[in-house]
Amino acid sequence: ESTSGESHAPQSFISVVEQIKQQIAREDVKFVRFEATDLHGVSRSKIVPARFFHEKAVYGVPMPRAYLELTLSSKVNEVDNANVANFSSDILLIPDMSTFKILPWANHTARVICDPCSVTGVPLRTSPRLIAKQLLAQLQNMGFSLHSSLTYECCLLGLGERVGPKAVFFPATTLLSNNDLPFLHQLITGMYYMGVDVDSFASASGPGQMEISLKPKFGIDAADSAFTFRTGIKEMARKYNYLASFYTDDGMYNAGGFSHSLWDANGRRSLFHTGGGDLSEIGRKWLAGLLHHSAAISCLMAPGVGCRNQLTKGVKDQKRAVFATCGSNDNSCAFNVKFHGGRETHIENKLGSAMANPYIVLAATLAAGLDGIKHNLSFEYSLNRAPSQQKQFAIPEKLECALEALAEDKVIRGALGEPFVQYFIAMKKFEIETQELDAERNKSLEYFI
Amino acid sequence: ESTSGESHAPQSFISVVEQIKQQIAREDVKFVRFEATDLHGVSRSKIVPARFFHEKAVYGVPMPRAYLELTLSSKVNEVDNANVANFSSDILLIPDMSTFKILPWANHTARVICDPCSVTGVPLRTSPRLIAKQLLAQLQNMGFSLHSSLTYECCLLGLGERVGPKAVFFPATTLLSNNDLPFLHQLITGMYYMGVDVDSFASASGPGQMEISLKPKFGIDAADSAFTFRTGIKEMARKYNYLASFYTDDGMYNAGGFSHSLWDANGRRSLFHTGGGDLSEIGRKWLAGLLHHSAAISCLMAPGVGCRNQLTKGVKDQKRAVFATCGSNDNSCAFNVKFHGGRETHIENKLGSAMANPYIVLAATLAAGLDGIKHNLSFEYSLNRAPSQQKQFAIPEKLECALEALAEDKVIRGALGEPFVQYFIAMKKFEIETQELDAERNKSLEYFI
Repeated sequence: ESTSGESHAPQSFISVVEQIKQQIAREDVKFVRFEATDLHGVSRSKIVPARFFHEKAVYGVPMPRAYLELTLSSKVNEVDNANVANFSSDILLIPDMSTFKILPWANHTARVICDPCSVTGVPLRTSPRLIAKQLLAQLQNMGFSLHSSLTYECCLLGLGERVGPKAVFFPATTLLSNNDLPFLHQLITGMYYMGVDVDSFASASGPGQMEISLKPKFGIDAADSAFTFRTGIKEMARKYNYLASFYTDDGMYNAGGFSHSLWDANGRRSLFHTGGGDLSEIGRKWLAGLLHHSAAISCLMAPGVGCRNQLTKGVKDQKRAVFATCGSNDNSCAFNVKFHGGRETHIENKLGSAMANPYIVLAATLAAGLDGIKHNLSFEYSLNRAPSQQKQFAIPEKLECALEALAEDKVIRGALGEPFVQYFIAMKKFEIETQELDAERNKSLEYFI
Repeated sequence: ESTSGESHAPQSFISVVEQIKQQIAREDVKFVRFEATDLHGVSRSKIVPARFFHEKAVYGVPMPRAYLELTLSSKVNEVDNANVANFSSDILLIPDMSTFKILPWANHTARVICDPCSVTGVPLRTSPRLIAKQLLAQLQNMGFSLHSSLTYECCLLGLGERVGPKAVFFPATTLLSNNDLPFLHQLITGMYYMGVDVDSFASASGPGQMEISLKPKFGIDAADSAFTFRTGIKEMARKYNYLASFYTDDGMYNAGGFSHSLWDANGRRSLFHTGGGDLSEIGRKWLAGLLHHSAAISCLMAPGVGCRNQLTKGVKDQKRAVFATCGSNDNSCAFNVKFHGGRETHIENKLGSAMANPYIVLAATLAAGLDGIKHNLSFEYSLNRAPSQQKQFAIPEKLECALEALAEDKVIRGALGEPFVQYFIAMKKFEIETQELDAERNKSLEYFI
């Protein structure tokens, strides 16, 4: 529909590209990696020799392959209009210039994060980063901004030594032995140059287990940092002959906490904060939104089969239901309101795992919270009720039940967009069907995550 | 209950933080480790990049995980009031600035010992360091202070060589062979920088066995030193490819002596001292307190299953009872009164093992001693009676009997606080139940202690 004459490139765009070409010349960059995230928060990219950068920055990089495998029946795609076909078309990676950085762990290489669009420039409705940016735009228009950060539990494995299969544990230890320290120095300073700010790390439960929490940032930067951190720590671990893994099998945890708080438009005051020790009015609505949709968003935040049963870790016999609980300063609740530690009041959401895609985590939280604010949702008990008496919002244990809960939740589907949700559900069902008979395969899947 | 307005932090607090930030800048510290002790005297910590130190020092470091495992029935928590919930809340590590030190064995890293509190700033009733500080406060109010120190027997194992199982020994030797000397230099000088004052070390009975005794200190410093010493010697041993172990299996000893004496409030005169060669009046009461509660406190001081049977080392046939004995200058008694060696009169308590948590050792001693003073307890024989005629205070051999003795001892429970004792007992029962069928597991537990 649009002509192909010389598009009106804004003046500043050209000068930004010029600056970057200068930087490429000055620091002798030879390759630029155009990367985008996929459903699992793993980055997919194409590497281009630096002398084609100008051209690729203007027209984008074509990328050709499948993301979704489609189900057999074809009653699905009524909403979009008729003639852009279905699954196996090319898309374009359109780079976002503000994320151009030179990789401190790979020589002569730089990277830029891209948004996938169709070949006509229409942004793809199934790309998590885009959905997150749209929901942030809505938030911006309502005069709010989100201040958020992620915390990851991951496992540093030295290649070639694993603790034997069956074990029961006491809680763990202080002493990363000494000769990991150079790696940690490199990791943290390297990240700092990439704009990723590590708040604290401790060794979590079990050998080589680490818990790393990032400093909170405004808007999309929080997710970009997490995304960068995930890619970086894997490649850097490799340089030191380690394996960094966010995956879980029994005996290792991969909790992924998402703590966030709502601020005004240009980031001066926090809207969760009240004088006394309680959550503000608008906070309760936001929290009510999270609670009402906790069944649906739980499968967006813990999308792995193996990683749901830490939801059920604390309860003995396996048959009774799990409920979304909230409390203040209570780590056994799904939603934990915190007032301390020098940060403004914020909500920590513990439904997640380190395997979730940070953009989806961000989008799901926004979708639920906004619904809470628009429809003035509420929950009728106070924050101090013991979690064991909060039985209003059930969370399904099995992934497939969680997928149904997602399928029935109109609000979340509306916020995230129809095509993304269908694709997500189809995708996970497929995993579930092919899953029992290959515990072994997943292990080396790790190699590819 | 306390307001959250900008409290006028005392001028000295800010300046102390300022000094430390200076020291961080001067010595190029990159990480600060906030650590607290757990029930076993093993330290738990979070590491924070140094540029966030100021903020963490003011608001504390949140730490999220379980310390107590709860029993099945729920009739336990009647005492505290209604709305702080149960097990899985966050706590804050509030740093105690006077323990800030730069670790001489880890590059660019410093540490600070913290007290765990709830998020509202209420100190946690199950933390050993806090209990010790409260009991010291009582002592302070009664116009007394405690001058104490610990002595550890531990075993230096070179990775990969153990002396064979059965052997009969003469007493030991002078010359740790020459090439351990650098490690010992480092250990002792390193400790000195950390405020830990080693009084003397000798090689104890058996190869690689070492006996290290610390210089006595007033109040909590004695326990802090011991705590630091335990963490330090493990990490430093690692740098020299040794394994330092306080654990015991047969053929190795891990006695842990605790010698203490009572002084007046601001530490000028020792209240155990009399002109002649005897224990003062107030000393006998203190000692009587120890004797009356020796059954209960013995399980606080030798909390490992394997480490109780050195209580029964000296007696041939195994079936007769063990009694708490006292004497003067007699190393075969449980409580040994000493007048010599340039130190004031003090009591050496040999019920302990190196495995005990030094804060609990301190607290247990205080609880028993104070009871002796408050209720004027006495024992009717003199210090010179042969130990074999002292049969008044029996000590149970098995751990579970010792736990009952603790459960029935009102005084100790009152002094240490109800929640701590219940938690301690529940904890040890759990160990005992899961204990027979895994001798092997304990070995590598070592790896995590």
